[in-house]
Amino acid sequence: MSYDRIFNFSAGPSMLPVPVLESAREEMLNYHGSGMSVMEMSHRSKVYDEIITGAEALLRTVMGIPGNYKVMFLQGGASLQFAMVPMNLLKSGKADYIVTGQFSGKAYDEAKKYGDIGLAATTKGETFSRVPQQSELSLRKDADYVHICFNNTIYGTRFNYIPDTGNVPLVADMSSCILSEPVDVSKFGLIYAGAQKNVAPAGLTIVIAREELLTKELPAFVPTMCNYAVMADNGSMYNTPPCYPIYICKLVLEWIKSIGGLAGMKKLNEKKAAILYDYLDESALFKNPVSRESRSLMNVTFRAQSDEINDSFVKEAAKNGMANLKGHRSVGGMRASIYNAMPIEGVEKVVAFMKRFEQK
Amino acid sequence: MSYDRIFNFSAGPSMLPVPVLESAREEMLNYHGSGMSVMEMSHRSKVYDEIITGAEALLRTVMGIPGNYKVMFLQGGASLQFAMVPMNLLKSGKADYIVTGQFSGKAYDEAKKYGDIGLAATTKGETFSRVPQQSELSLRKDADYVHICFNNTIYGTRFNYIPDTGNVPLVADMSSCILSEPVDVSKFGLIYAGAQKNVAPAGLTIVIAREELLTKELPAFVPTMCNYAVMADNGSMYNTPPCYPIYICKLVLEWIKSIGGLAGMKKLNEKKAAILYDYLDESALFKNPVSRESRSLMNVTFRAQSDEINDSFVKEAAKNGMANLKGHRSVGGMRASIYNAMPIEGVEKVVAFMKRFEQK
Repeated sequence: MSYDRIFNFSAGPSMLPVPVLESAREEMLNYHGSGMSVMEMSHRSKVYDEIITGAEALLRTVMGIPGNYKVMFLQGGASLQFAMVPMNLLKSGKADYIVTGQFSGKAYDEAKKYGDIGLAATTKGETFSRVPQQSELSLRKDADYVHICFNNTIYGTRFNYIPDTGNVPLVADMSSCILSEPVDVSKFGLIYAGAQKNVAPAGLTIVIAREELLTKELPAFVPTMCNYAVMADNGSMYNTPPCYPIYICKLVLEWIKSIGGLAGMKKLNEKKAAILYDYLDESALFKNPVSRESRSLMNVTFRAQSDEINDSFVKEAAKNGMANLKGHRSVGGMRASIYNAMPIEGVEKVVAFMKRFEQK
Repeated sequence: MSYDRIFNFSAGPSMLPVPVLESAREEMLNYHGSGMSVMEMSHRSKVYDEIITGAEALLRTVMGIPGNYKVMFLQGGASLQFAMVPMNLLKSGKADYIVTGQFSGKAYDEAKKYGDIGLAATTKGETFSRVPQQSELSLRKDADYVHICFNNTIYGTRFNYIPDTGNVPLVADMSSCILSEPVDVSKFGLIYAGAQKNVAPAGLTIVIAREELLTKELPAFVPTMCNYAVMADNGSMYNTPPCYPIYICKLVLEWIKSIGGLAGMKKLNEKKAAILYDYLDESALFKNPVSRESRSLMNVTFRAQSDEINDSFVKEAAKNGMANLKGHRSVGGMRASIYNAMPIEGVEKVVAFMKRFEQK
């Protein structure tokens, strides 16, 4: 691999495509003859306007976002969305949450500060080793929205279906799966995603919301910066947006387009995940703890029988150019995060290494 | 100038030091042999920890921040601080604001959502052409804090003194002057600054707060992400921080240190500002509308008699490699923002150009 780069299996921030980094390097001191870096541009200049409107247009094309949806480039990560969603969308005061891991649990706890929040389902009793199926959901017909986390980074699970919530808008945290495969945006009232896994460096949050759900008239305690309608009406320019991550986002979207859009991305991601899961299903040493139907395409968790073996595996892998394979501190074991930018060679290398390790 | 770069007088985002951009370019695909870009690093990795703790340590050294102050690397810009300050610091419910321009006006309006906010003074009647002096301030002794904007980007003014607020903590928005000269941090209860002028690219907000002012127990409506105590207790890692701007911030601080710290910075900034103000005081064509004692070191505003001349000046300057000299859309005229990274050659060039323009 050029530049002596390693394969970085971090859950996020995580790998970016090499061509994106090469463009960023190339354009660092002088973007397209403007005489300045993208980091130095006035966000209200013509040259920057082409970047932000270009990024939005590309996102709309690549994801097939319908015209009645607003796209916002915000700050604060998914964690700020945990508050912004209820602050903006609670009207009757009721919402239902499906809790499938640590982050959806945090979203649920934060929402409780703002209204009557129902627990529609949880798989906590099964150590979040799967997501609940449609028949298990207790949904209130008069709720303002239903919230899910589409892919659960820590537990390596994901929804293999879009929950049917009738007329109640579905809100999804897609931080760890956005842009990994095609998704029917029209099935969602609102989608949000921290950018630092599949989109851009940390510091950018993408929000895609059906226009009719947004209203400027919110309770007085809602910070102006947390009002979706204000952000959308100002084209994400109510104040200075995170300009550089938006620029990288545009480069990433161009890269995705060049390899076949989200359909091409899905094919590649399924291939990568299959290499890992197929081996795990055969291995006598390593096990994947997730129910087959809930397996994540992005985060593949596995573990050996003892913490000692797990630790030794993570250390040996790091020495061999495969970094950040340690599982989240709350669950232990291992986790290979194989987001869009992880090349297939990285997955092949880790599986080859697992085989050698198992033989030893 | 190398790389065909231009002199960019933007009010923000604005110029970064060339050595900083060169380091960023050099390290783009492989930071210090880590095999990855800073944009790709797990924020909880050892290699990134050195960056964020290094940035904080440098900021403490360069600004002389006392040990009983917390440093936070946040998101959302000064505009989110307009809400976070009252949400966190209002205890009795009263605060006093000095309004000296558009942004301090926005801060004042936002704070009114949360309590009994007094107008301690304003120079609105004088088109914000100066800041009020100590004797003009109506301060309430039982207020929770007094808020000022230390440097007013749009009007080109700044406080030439630190208001004496007795036992009431002073809160200052220093977005457009932080790191431009030494400041006695111990005189402030809290300082905040959007990074995109003197510190780093947009997307990072620095908050420096006296520890005793922070408390986790806040009204239920305050988003967890807006709770200073939570952010500070987690070392700005409650969630993923804006990692890349923090890295650039560290490079900028190293650059400031290399040219003599804030004392050296001040000397350079005073020299740059004097070149412009001295010429403006003599010019028959261009006038600076600001009272002498309130003149900003960072944003120098000026105008000719007619909008036609102003427009023509801005256009001609841009053709000659001096960009973004147009004044803010709310006031018109011209503005040269000469932040830390603007070289003295840029100021000399613009003054030489003004002289030629005046002769014509």
